[in-house]
Amino acid sequence: MIHLTRRYHFAASHRLHSGHFSDAENRDLYGKCNHPFGHGHDYVLEVCVAGPLNPGTGQVINPRKLDKLVQESILKDFEHRNLNLDVPEFGDLVPTSENIVFVIRERLERNWGAAFPGAWPRLERIRLEETQRNVIELNI
Amino acid sequence: MIHLTRRYHFAASHRLHSGHFSDAENRDLYGKCNHPFGHGHDYVLEVCVAGPLNPGTGQVINPRKLDKLVQESILKDFEHRNLNLDVPEFGDLVPTSENIVFVIRERLERNWGAAFPGAWPRLERIRLEETQRNVIELNI
Amino acid sequence: MIHLTRRYHFAASHRLHSGHFSDAENRDLYGKCNHPFGHGHDYVLEVCVAGPLNPGTGQVINPRKLDKLVQESILKDFEHRNLNLDVPEFGDLVPTSENIVFVIRERLERNWGAAFPGAWPRLERIRLEETQRNVIELNI
Amino acid sequence: MIHLTRRYHFAASHRLHSGHFSDAENRDLYGKCNHPFGHGHDYVLEVCVAGPLNPGTGQVINPRKLDKLVQESILKDFEHRNLNLDVPEFGDLVPTSENIVFVIRERLERNWGAAFPGAWPRLERIRLEETQRNVIELNI
Amino acid sequence: MIHLTRRYHFAASHRLHSGHFSDAENRDLYGKCNHPFGHGHDYVLEVCVAGPLNPGTGQVINPRKLDKLVQESILKDFEHRNLNLDVPEFGDLVPTSENIVFVIRERLERNWGAAFPGAWPRLERIRLEETQRNVIELNI
Amino acid sequence: MIHLTRRYHFAASHRLHSGHFSDAENRDLYGKCNHPFGHGHDYVLEVCVAGPLNPGTGQVINPRKLDKLVQESILKDFEHRNLNLDVPEFGDLVPTSENIVFVIRERLERNWGAAFPGAWPRLERIRLEETQRNVIELNI
Repeated sequence: MIHLTRRYHFAASHRLHSGHFSDAENRDLYGKCNHPFGHGHDYVLEVCVAGPLNPGTGQVINPRKLDKLVQESILKDFEHRNLNLDVPEFGDLVPTSENIVFVIRERLERNWGAAFPGAWPRLERIRLEETQRNVIELNI
Repeated sequence: MIHLTRRYHFAASHRLHSGHFSDAENRDLYGKCNHPFGHGHDYVLEVCVAGPLNPGTGQVINPRKLDKLVQESILKDFEHRNLNLDVPEFGDLVPTSENIVFVIRERLERNWGAAFPGAWPRLERIRLEETQRNVIELNI
Repeated sequence: MIHLTRRYHFAASHRLHSGHFSDAENRDLYGKCNHPFGHGHDYVLEVCVAGPLNPGTGQVINPRKLDKLVQESILKDFEHRNLNLDVPEFGDLVPTSENIVFVIRERLERNWGAAFPGAWPRLERIRLEETQRNVIELNI
Repeated sequence: MIHLTRRYHFAASHRLHSGHFSDAENRDLYGKCNHPFGHGHDYVLEVCVAGPLNPGTGQVINPRKLDKLVQESILKDFEHRNLNLDVPEFGDLVPTSENIVFVIRERLERNWGAAFPGAWPRLERIRLEETQRNVIELNI
Repeated sequence: MIHLTRRYHFAASHRLHSGHFSDAENRDLYGKCNHPFGHGHDYVLEVCVAGPLNPGTGQVINPRKLDKLVQESILKDFEHRNLNLDVPEFGDLVPTSENIVFVIRERLERNWGAAFPGAWPRLERIRLEETQRNVIELNI
Repeated sequence: MIHLTRRYHFAASHRLHSGHFSDAENRDLYGKCNHPFGHGHDYVLEVCVAGPLNPGTGQVINPRKLDKLVQESILKDFEHRNLNLDVPEFGDLVPTSENIVFVIRERLERNWGAAFPGAWPRLERIRLEETQRNVIELNI
């Protein structure tokens, strides 16, 4: 079993604000991420897959197929976008890094079987660097 | 003469769109930076100063005074903000990296004399990395 | 279950020398890290926590509470300090990266319950980059 | 149990082309990595070991012994070399990152016992960054 | 006057060997870069342009036009290629970083006028990182 | 005329404290860099040289000769050392980054003519990153 990680980038803006809390609670909870007009980041997304080595190709996955899946499932909608306003899932879901990772997982899993119909490779881990100081990882 | 550069970070969002052009011209000119709801970056700002060595302190500038000037002139208003909506200068100025650098110069020069009243150190260069792929430099 | 990692920096000096060995053995064991007057590094500390997503906040942990805990438990005493002389635990413990990680774990665990009284989030992993070439990880 | 990772670099060239496939299949499978005269990378190799802390030395491994093992087993033959033509294992094995990692594991395991005769430390993980966008990990 | 730098990447292989010297002289001159079958790098190319701010667009240059010029003049022929065998200029010119920079300048200057017919922006500086340890800069 | 920059690293410790000032003035002037037992950094040193291209070798300088000069003039005495106590020039000179750069220049210039007896290449610029946030440059 071997793991391959591909790294992608997208620039996006967001604002952290929840309708479940008062304005004061939002400010206390999210700090400067609650500023009313939003702000942005250069996100780094890592998608890690696992599988056995294909001895014919010497690969665990076709990297261009994975790039195509990530491009169409994620980057097409996230890159140079406002997450709150451009990505439907964040209509009433706060775009914290944690929630972004869950949305990315859900989108990748929905399209995985069409791209990779066999038992392998499978999606192993999603990692999102909001900044170099704040990183979220989700093991599938 | 010696040069000292201090590096600062701010996360901000912006949208490139000029009222002087039609929507189609804006899309053609600014590409995905023209997406209607904006996007964001982790900007890296470098402020370079020049001056003679102070033989008593072994320094060209007091770095904490420079940090304070940059914090109060720039970061306080730019960090975790929407440049178009939160920074008055961009009310009708497109927040391209070039224009951001000119605004930063103007703000630093306005407050420079109060922070550094002598002939030295002087502001030498402002450098802004919008992303690792796009960098603007302005020699003063 | 989701993981969040926060990254911190501290500049510190140290010397590797053990009273259990002769001077020649210390030089052989620690190489140039045994130079008598010490040397220093810009350490990178990563603290990784695990827990379920809080659906209200969209977070696994309040990042500012974690920053405060790390600041008060670790950085306050380590940042711009001499580990051998300024940090009591290294009075007779060689400040190798391995031992530094154990001291960091012990300090974080001692204060964890006061900062995070529930079952979650819990401390998952401590990672210390002494340099880009030498990295220690401790899974809790 | 504690983990130590050491990071190494080597510049090498390679070409991805398999005799099991036609020229058209090779182009389709490996894309621009199939260009006939090869290309190159600055590979980053991480070797991760695991073991208990040696309380006398405060170390999990003697880092200079590990460096010597990696130098003699890997870097001596890979650094500034053409992997297809200079490294015998790739005589009829396509030098994908996956296969390079398996060759590195086989070489390290062959020489491990002579360098580290006890039960610990043991080889835990090999990680190879072909580029910042493509990373392979093999847990031993 | 303002400067904009765009950063590009290409992976390529090369061998340093000059027909003007004996084999022993080549080994002495180029060290491990003279290994017979070549090696490779992930080159980082920075193209810096200078010009006045266009007050209408807020830009010094149209970045997509510059990207297109660099893609067609340089990257199309250099990316994932063997410089000695795939790039005609290096038929009898040793592909040192210095010579690569001169070839890049010559190619950019040849196509500059067609892409940017006015007096501004003009090509200001070419910078090539062969590795993080070795960087060449040519001011135009 | 072409420029070549080589990058070097050294880990060192230092303390900023001047005998010309009182303890309170030192604390005010140097902040936490004045902590009594010192601290340390992973310094990045860049040495930039200028000269014409040697058309025979395709080089502006022999990089291994420059490495040897820097190793013997600087790194041998600075690497894994305490600047205040191990480097004689800092006996009564505060080891600020500015002063370190002047000492490096003086040492390189003293040995330059023996290593590079002709008119070219000449030493052009010394750049020292104390941390990623604080950089000193000296044009020769």
